[in-house]
Amino acid sequence: MELSLILGISILGLLFAVYLIRDVLRRDTGTPKMREISDAIKSGAEAFLRRQNRTILYLAVALAAIIYILYAFVRAANEHDPASPAQLALWTTLSFVLGALCSVAAGYMGMWVAIRSNIRTAAGATRDMNSALQPALRGGAVSGFFVVAMSLLGVAGLFGVVHATGVSPDVTKIPLLIVGYGFGASFVALFAQLGGGIYTKAADVGADLVGKVEAGIPEDDPRNPAVIADLVGDNVGDCAGRGADLFESTAAENIGAMILAAGLYRANTAVFEAQGLTILGVLLFPLVARAFGIIASMIGILAVKTTDQEDPMKALNRGYAITSVLAIIGFFVASRWLLGSEYYLNFFFCGMIGVLTAFAFVLITQYYTEYRYRPVKSIAEASQTGPATNIIAGIAVGMESTGYPILVIAAAIISAYFLGEHSGLQHAGLFGTAVATMGMLGTAAYILAMDTFGPITDNAGGIVEMSQQPKEIRDRTDRLDSVGNTTKALTKGYAVGSAALAAFLLFSAYIDEVKVYMPSFSGVINLNKPEVFVGSMLGAVLVFIFSSLAIKAVGRAAYSIINNVREQFKNNPGIMLGTAKPDYGQCVDIATKSALREMVIPGLLPVVVPVAVGVLFKWLYNASGQPVNGASGAEVVGGLLMVGTIVGILMALFLNNGGGAWDNAKKFIETGAYGGKRSDPHKASVVGDTVGDPFKDTAGPSLHVLIKLLSTITLVLAPLFI
Amino acid sequence: MELSLILGISILGLLFAVYLIRDVLRRDTGTPKMREISDAIKSGAEAFLRRQNRTILYLAVALAAIIYILYAFVRAANEHDPASPAQLALWTTLSFVLGALCSVAAGYMGMWVAIRSNIRTAAGATRDMNSALQPALRGGAVSGFFVVAMSLLGVAGLFGVVHATGVSPDVTKIPLLIVGYGFGASFVALFAQLGGGIYTKAADVGADLVGKVEAGIPEDDPRNPAVIADLVGDNVGDCAGRGADLFESTAAENIGAMILAAGLYRANTAVFEAQGLTILGVLLFPLVARAFGIIASMIGILAVKTTDQEDPMKALNRGYAITSVLAIIGFFVASRWLLGSEYYLNFFFCGMIGVLTAFAFVLITQYYTEYRYRPVKSIAEASQTGPATNIIAGIAVGMESTGYPILVIAAAIISAYFLGEHSGLQHAGLFGTAVATMGMLGTAAYILAMDTFGPITDNAGGIVEMSQQPKEIRDRTDRLDSVGNTTKALTKGYAVGSAALAAFLLFSAYIDEVKVYMPSFSGVINLNKPEVFVGSMLGAVLVFIFSSLAIKAVGRAAYSIINNVREQFKNNPGIMLGTAKPDYGQCVDIATKSALREMVIPGLLPVVVPVAVGVLFKWLYNASGQPVNGASGAEVVGGLLMVGTIVGILMALFLNNGGGAWDNAKKFIETGAYGGKRSDPHKASVVGDTVGDPFKDTAGPSLHVLIKLLSTITLVLAPLFI
Repeated sequence: MELSLILGISILGLLFAVYLIRDVLRRDTGTPKMREISDAIKSGAEAFLRRQNRTILYLAVALAAIIYILYAFVRAANEHDPASPAQLALWTTLSFVLGALCSVAAGYMGMWVAIRSNIRTAAGATRDMNSALQPALRGGAVSGFFVVAMSLLGVAGLFGVVHATGVSPDVTKIPLLIVGYGFGASFVALFAQLGGGIYTKAADVGADLVGKVEAGIPEDDPRNPAVIADLVGDNVGDCAGRGADLFESTAAENIGAMILAAGLYRANTAVFEAQGLTILGVLLFPLVARAFGIIASMIGILAVKTTDQEDPMKALNRGYAITSVLAIIGFFVASRWLLGSEYYLNFFFCGMIGVLTAFAFVLITQYYTEYRYRPVKSIAEASQTGPATNIIAGIAVGMESTGYPILVIAAAIISAYFLGEHSGLQHAGLFGTAVATMGMLGTAAYILAMDTFGPITDNAGGIVEMSQQPKEIRDRTDRLDSVGNTTKALTKGYAVGSAALAAFLLFSAYIDEVKVYMPSFSGVINLNKPEVFVGSMLGAVLVFIFSSLAIKAVGRAAYSIINNVREQFKNNPGIMLGTAKPDYGQCVDIATKSALREMVIPGLLPVVVPVAVGVLFKWLYNASGQPVNGASGAEVVGGLLMVGTIVGILMALFLNNGGGAWDNAKKFIETGAYGGKRSDPHKASVVGDTVGDPFKDTAGPSLHVLIKLLSTITLVLAPLFI
Repeated sequence: MELSLILGISILGLLFAVYLIRDVLRRDTGTPKMREISDAIKSGAEAFLRRQNRTILYLAVALAAIIYILYAFVRAANEHDPASPAQLALWTTLSFVLGALCSVAAGYMGMWVAIRSNIRTAAGATRDMNSALQPALRGGAVSGFFVVAMSLLGVAGLFGVVHATGVSPDVTKIPLLIVGYGFGASFVALFAQLGGGIYTKAADVGADLVGKVEAGIPEDDPRNPAVIADLVGDNVGDCAGRGADLFESTAAENIGAMILAAGLYRANTAVFEAQGLTILGVLLFPLVARAFGIIASMIGILAVKTTDQEDPMKALNRGYAITSVLAIIGFFVASRWLLGSEYYLNFFFCGMIGVLTAFAFVLITQYYTEYRYRPVKSIAEASQTGPATNIIAGIAVGMESTGYPILVIAAAIISAYFLGEHSGLQHAGLFGTAVATMGMLGTAAYILAMDTFGPITDNAGGIVEMSQQPKEIRDRTDRLDSVGNTTKALTKGYAVGSAALAAFLLFSAYIDEVKVYMPSFSGVINLNKPEVFVGSMLGAVLVFIFSSLAIKAVGRAAYSIINNVREQFKNNPGIMLGTAKPDYGQCVDIATKSALREMVIPGLLPVVVPVAVGVLFKWLYNASGQPVNGASGAEVVGGLLMVGTIVGILMALFLNNGGGAWDNAKKFIETGAYGGKRSDPHKASVVGDTVGDPFKDTAGPSLHVLIKLLSTITLVLAPLFI
């Protein structure tokens, strides 16, 4: 019953996405000039994604083989295994492959529609605001529904198949067979976000530095040879990358919550049975709650309409409010139905905490990145004394911006834990924090629609600009573009917040999993053991090294683009005069090649390090005769995971908010403050904006994925450290 | 016997410092013009330090009163207390006050001599290199010996007095009565380093931005109204600040190591007694090892001589090698004597690990901050495409530079722990890591001499420049200045390394202390409890907020100086023409006032946060009926302390090395690379250098102190969280 409902709603979500695609595609595609530009973007983006997916799939196949070999041949069987070694190896590998394929597909679909929505948004802008807003939001929503529905369908489907085959006699152990799904999704997401993030910012930085700063031509000027690469970058970085990111967030969270639900059922079997609640109901509660969230998001999306007079942000906020209210109602129904009339209330409140946390994160992100408030203003003010003080102020703002989010997360974890502990069920504290995460991710489809809305409107603006449309139309797309910038920043705040909550859920799941395989494990990750302390240090330093590699990769790739643009300007003076057309393809090609080359090392790092640490410390522990006060490999990896997560969250907040604040400090000066455009403070603020680019669009978002990848890889490999 | 030896050597160290003072003071003070400049520096530095010490002492007196009240009236007596509540309150408060006073005195003495050595170094440079090198190194050594000898004298003296009064019948609990000494020292050190760091970089950034960048006059040009403030800053930031920092390092480490030695003795009483080893001998082993290190440093300092032909760095390295070899011999003697013939060898090897760790840190720091190597070169190369890419490259280098040091620390902790575990004694693993820390800090006096050497030669260079000496003399001070830059960078690497090792020692001491007061405490800091996870997040975010505040403080203070300099240039055009003298006093005064105002909030933050967290979670734990799976206040604070330390070390490495690399990338371009001085890449590199200033000289070094302050404050307040 529960399973059919989930599968049904997932399929409904996919059908809705197909409906949205048809709705977008039947719209007007504007003038031939517009189509020409849009086609250039389309072919660049598709070429990049094809090549990127090929690279990722090679890596994924190699990893799948390694996982299979490790499980089937290296690992010793354990009496607590959920299934026979052969079955365990088979299903773990299969679910990894399926997770990877679905993640690739979700990212690809999102982008496929986005690069077709941009031109329709541009064409719609020639008529009125509603005709521009709807294709942008609905195009973005395709990505949202594909991602959320497919991740749900994948997890529920795998669960159903494994359940039907009966390979695991103990139903509560089924989630352990499909943890590979989350890891497959994370693995793809990390490379998609890294590759896309490097591409987009290398193109952006390259285009800006030679175009705006050296040649003095405006943004999106068709004379800039890197302009198409820049527009392609918005799609591959923001649509495809973020899509893969949120695909894995929801997939990993679904599985993690099921593992915790299994633990809850084991600890409270008698109570649940007395209430007439089934094991399947409790296990599938997280998926049902997610399914109801999809329905809420559908209604929210369809409700968005606007007029030329209204601020488009208002229309989007209206849709979000409708989605949130419906999601809360759905959450109430799901918890009342599946968790029993006596115990559901505290968990419902946990879900509300999740919704409130999402809201708080959005508010804090606004405070730190919008120029109405003190932080961005302080950066603009510091620009008066040059680029150095602009940078110092921006770094200080970025570091400061970690404070409130951490307090909010701390309050959410503690209060959800206590609500769970006092729900009347045994050992329900961690499940309470898991439910808060579900509440936060309930509106994920709508949020993701708003997020992908950003690059679509950005592209539409570029198309309108490059096809030299009249000012009235440019004004419409400019307004939409600025709304898109806001939604992109807000959804980034939401993404970190949910990553932070989900991380706590995921490593609770890790502990539960280790306990299943090794019932003697106390569940303690004791920081006071030198091995665990060392593991924690390594987790923390991993974040720094990864960020360094990601940032450096952008620098190197941008450098290649800059050199190409300079060369084109030099060899063909007609470009600057407007008499000759630059060769856009060269920059697209260079960006593609550099991004794919540069993503491999930072992408493999978070895969290799936890494994190496786990294996090394397992060996050390066994070699010294498993001393009582020693730490097992699983415990050391636990420290790595937890402290790596904490530092990852802080670093992501620092990078995202710092980058966003620099960006808007520049925009604030462009409104006329401190001398306005072309003044010295403006030049200083452009330096800050450029520094912030790889922070907020490459390293920061990749860290969200890294945090969850650390969790999913340890979930998959935990049996090997034991 | 052991105690008299330690007290004797401490006093010998102080007498040696007095001998060095006399040696420096009897030297030639150069021309009247030189004296005029030196006097201006002297009066500025002394005025700042007087006002700063007044502010710090007010804060310290208030804190002493709070500590006394908390211990005497708020805290409930405990059967495991080392002494009666009244005695415990008295000695904790007294040792706090004494630690604070000694730290102030050590910082003041170091600076008092430094501002008298600079002129003598300048005057010596008019004759030959040796006459310049000796007063600089010996002046620096005064600081080194005062700091190390006074911290040893204070700890040993307090121990002796408490022992003699007999307030604690159990000798192994005496260290718990004097933990306040380390906290007093840390408290003063934090404000001294913060205030001095803000002063020096505000003056430096201010002087550079208006002088070098806007007005286009060289560094140390007498026309720049901020030039004297800049020279004063070197003294108050580097001499007084670093002196207080290392004072507290050695004091905290002495006490922490004694607490662990007490634990070791309790666990192995029978074995030690069978070997004829006394409790006093084991307890005082850390102090004896330190005392022998003082003698080694003395001989090393006296051995340094050079000629005009030799590279002065070589002479310093020769002295360091002599000191290291003697310190190792002393360590061997101390461990053989006090830890027994059967068990000493593994601990001696732990000490060697400490020496090797120090050496590795120096090498890694060189690699990341000298322009002979790839990292700095990559920043210089990135300067070709402007300030934005220079900044991006520098941040990437700073983040990358955290990798090897963490691997080294990890290897040191694990190997020293295993050597201790396999020494044949029970529970000796943590003591092994403590012994490695002692090994690392054995040469502290010599290292500190090299460190203070930096600002002295920097000042000497400024005096020679401003008094317009001939080129030959300027060349000598320039060579010394560049050696001083190197030693400053290296000693910063040494300081973080020792902070990292000492931190692990200190929180092992914290756990041991909590166990004494609450024998039921398991010693486990379980990251998997939500409270501990939240505490850890708060520890990590504390580092980010603190760094943000420190960096912002420099920005704000520099802004005031820039405005004053611009005003002076505008109101008195004669300054730029060289016909009128600028008013140096105004800038000195502004720097003083801003630094003192700005240091208070960041300085109080790391004091308030751990206390607030400890009290809040103690209340929460008690309010929910002390659940078995809940976390006590002591455990939550343990998480805060450990993760705060890990993040603090990483952030300090990032800030120090990033700043150092930017600085030398600029210097590399000044050697003629990429167009040399006044080229566009040079301008870009100046931006990076300016951004790096508050990183490497304010926030970074203050974080070293913060790490240890977190440890010492938790040591002092642990009894309150129980």
